Formats: sequence, C-alpha cells, structure tokens
Amino acid sequence: MEGFDRRTALMMGLFGALAASRASAQTAADPHAGHAMAAMPPGWVKPDQIAMLCYPGMTILDLIGPQYMFAALMGATVHLVGKTRDPMTSDTGVTILPTATFAECPKDLTVLFAPGGTSGTLAAMRDDATRAFIADRGARARYVTSVCTGALILGAAGLLKGYRATTHWAALETLTDCGATPVSERVVRDRNRITGAGVTAGLDFGLAMVAELRDPVYAQGVQLGCEYDPQPPFHAGSTRTAPPEVQAIMKSMYTAFPGQVRAALAAVKGPS
Amino acid sequence: MEGFDRRTALMMGLFGALAASRASAQTAADPHAGHAMAAMPPGWVKPDQIAMLCYPGMTILDLIGPQYMFAALMGATVHLVGKTRDPMTSDTGVTILPTATFAECPKDLTVLFAPGGTSGTLAAMRDDATRAFIADRGARARYVTSVCTGALILGAAGLLKGYRATTHWAALETLTDCGATPVSERVVRDRNRITGAGVTAGLDFGLAMVAELRDPVYAQGVQLGCEYDPQPPFHAGSTRTAPPEVQAIMKSMYTAFPGQVRAALAAVKGPS
Repeated sequence: MEGFDRRTALMMGLFGALAASRASAQTAADPHAGHAMAAMPPGWVKPDQIAMLCYPGMTILDLIGPQYMFAALMGATVHLVGKTRDPMTSDTGVTILPTATFAECPKDLTVLFAPGGTSGTLAAMRDDATRAFIADRGARARYVTSVCTGALILGAAGLLKGYRATTHWAALETLTDCGATPVSERVVRDRNRITGAGVTAGLDFGLAMVAELRDPVYAQGVQLGCEYDPQPPFHAGSTRTAPPEVQAIMKSMYTAFPGQVRAALAAVKGPS
Repeated sequence: MEGFDRRTALMMGLFGALAASRASAQTAADPHAGHAMAAMPPGWVKPDQIAMLCYPGMTILDLIGPQYMFAALMGATVHLVGKTRDPMTSDTGVTILPTATFAECPKDLTVLFAPGGTSGTLAAMRDDATRAFIADRGARARYVTSVCTGALILGAAGLLKGYRATTHWAALETLTDCGATPVSERVVRDRNRITGAGVTAGLDFGLAMVAELRDPVYAQGVQLGCEYDPQPPFHAGSTRTAPPEVQAIMKSMYTAFPGQVRAALAAVKGPS
C-alpha cells in the first residue's frame, strides 16, 4: 500500500542514523532492511489506534494536516471514521472515502480526533449518532483531540466540560457554552484533552502529538520530512496581528456563527 | 453545495467591510446578500479555472494546502484532475475522488498545479498520458505551478527547462536534470512558473497565489480565516535548522530518491 511507503522509509531512515556508528546506513532500498528493523527501538514502533472523525462539510485541511503527522507514526493505524462509508465532500469541495464506520471503529483508541468546519460542523453537533460515537470513544480514548471548530463537536458530546480548550478564533467564546474554559493559544492541553486553534494549527498540533506519542527527535524528523519551515507571505494569521481592515472583513464573515453554535448546543442539551 | 459556503461567506464578509461606512455590515446570513453582491468589486470575483493534478501515491497535504487557498477565490472553479475518475489513494492512505479526467479538464487554465510524493510521483513522471496532459495544459496555462516533488512532474513534461525552480530539499539537486536552475527558497517564481518547496510550503505558496490572483488584502483575509499563524513546536523544518542527528535520519531516508528521479527522467527522455 502506498500509505506504507513513507512509514517504511522513515523506519529505515531512523535505523540508518542509529547504525551510523557501524557505518552501515540503511535506506528503504536496502535489501537487508529486514535486519535493520530488528534493531528498531521498540519505543518508535507502537500499535496506536487513531480515529479521525469525517463528516460532510468538514474543512479537509483540518483533517489532512494532522493526518500527515499521524501517518508518519510507525506501527500506527489511522482510521478515517464516518457515520457511513459513503463519499463525503468537504467545505472546499474535496470528496474523500472514510475507511471505517462508527460501528467498525476500534473501541479503545490511542487518539480520537475531530476536525472543524462551519455549517457541516453545526450539523455534526446536532447528529445523535455522531455525538454518541464521540462520547463513547472519547470516554475511553487515551487522548481526546480536535483542530479548529472540531472542539465544538467534542463539546456537544460533553467531553470538554471542566477543561481548558481552544478552537478557531471566531468561535472561541462559544467554548464556555460547552462548559470549557476558552484559551487563546495555538495548541492547548488539559490532561488528555489536546485542542488546536483554527485550520492550519493542525500542523503544530500534529507535530506536538508525534512528540507526545513517540519523542522529540522523531517529531523533528517528521517536521524536516514535510519541510515545515513556515514563511507566510503576510502576518495576518491571528487577531493579534491582522490589519484592522482585514479583521473587519473576516469578523463580519463570522458574525452569525457563535449564535448558530449556541443554538446547536441548546438543541442537543449540551453540558452547559 | 458545501463547497460554496466558505466562498459565499467570504464574499459577504468582504462586502460587509466595504459597506461598513454605511453601517450595514453584511454576513452570509443576511437576507439582503443579493444586493451586497451587486456592489462586490469586479476584481475580487473572477472566473478562474484551476486544475490540480491528482494521482495515486501523491502526498495529499501537498494538494490540500493549496486547495484550501484556491477554494477561497470567489468565482473560481477548482478541478481535481485525474487520469481517470477512479478513487485515488495518497501516500498516507487518504482516498479522494477526482472531479474531472484529463479529457474533461478545461483547455485554457488560469492555474495548472502538480502535487508531489515519492514512488507515486516517479510513476506519474513515467506515465505518458500524465506527461502529455501536463505538457498540453502547461503550454497554455497562465500559471504553471507545483509544490514539493510535483516540480519533477512539470520537469518530466519539459516545463521547467530554462527556469529557476524549487522542490523538496531531498530532490532539489535533480531539478538540474530537468534543465532547471535549483533554488533553495520557500516559494520560487520565474516568469509564470511558481514552485513551492516540500509539502507544507503549499500553504505559503497558496497564499502567494491568492495575492497574485486577487490582491494582498484578499490574501490576508484568507490567512486570518485559516488562522495561519504558525508556531511549530520545534525548529527542524529545514536543512538549515534541523539538528545533525535529525538530518542524518532524514537524509538516509531519502538516499535513493535522487537516483530514482534521474532514472525516471532518463526513461522518458527528459529535456536535459
């Protein structure tokens, strides 16, 4: 499977570094790779079960940023979990195929993850089956996580009550309606709840998760592999730095969203 | 369609800012949005035709980073173009559905884009139909672009001969085999060729394209919308900053790749 290429190559690469003292660097093309694998530190290969929620209207970049990072975890299985396996179209028009249904998803997860969106996220919050799945797996998962407004799905399922968390800046205030304490930071951790800010925070969140599930050297290898050396052409990525004109544009875009979130939480008898 | 939500909301948001002086901020929920649209500056709504190549084994984050940015262009149509419309699985195991075949893709494009990958990219470089499609649309597109090793597909189709370009650090030297001049920068422009570095450079590339196709204020709005205020947990994203141990790991992972790229270019009688 293509999906295994990167993990196998990374494994061989990692061994190559470990074996450098023996001047016998290994690569994915090395016919003796099998021997190399025998020497792989156990801590770098773990059978993690990672479930990433998928739903119509999700913001696909919220899902794909972290998925790249999770997919680099040697030994892990990453499930793209939908209410059904029907093709699901994102809010930017990308259609993906889930790999498992709620019923097929493993019961005990290393990581449960929820991506955000706008109208699609509101619909997911209101969906009984989706909340039931998130509440069940979230109650037993080692880590309960999200990026962007995915935090509101965790909140609608009652998983953020009493926790510090973050979400997209346009919805941050609504975390209080989930019984959570809003924190305006890129990635927020409170016990086993780890939440990321809007959309692109999924890259920083994902690397933090790799370091958490493996170690910093492993995470730095993944960061170099995806050349994550960000150089935004503008400094408008946060409400602290964006020009007033730009903030006016975007805040007017999201004016109605907080009210829609509160209505969804009220409709499902949220924890607050 | 869900995919229209974000663009419509952005359009309304933009008008909201423009109309602020009339104290009549518009939002996507505004029943008078129709009137708002009538006042939209023509320069912010253009019928761009954008084609993003899709192939088995591509690195899906190479595609999705820029796709988020392109999808925010009001009036634009973003095509996910495959050799067929069959589901295509990425190198990290994400399966997507193309929206058009090579034959269905518009002839005259505003932007032609190619994502990268590893073994899947080598196969795409060797595929006659893929090179023919890229060469034909690339010869007429207003902008010919790529992220990561997608530049090697442009190169295999003869589109980088005589141009400055960039790609993933592990393959940078092979651009000379495409007749191009390698440049180790995040985003490189030479006339209408705009290429990005590895994987995550697609975010910086995408915002630069939004500014090019619309204007800086528009691009800053998109940046704030996806909260692109990067805060990597480590400083290992480039070969200039990654610790020696990490570089040894990752360079051993890619040891065989440049040779595989040259073999593919030689097999298809590349331009060099």
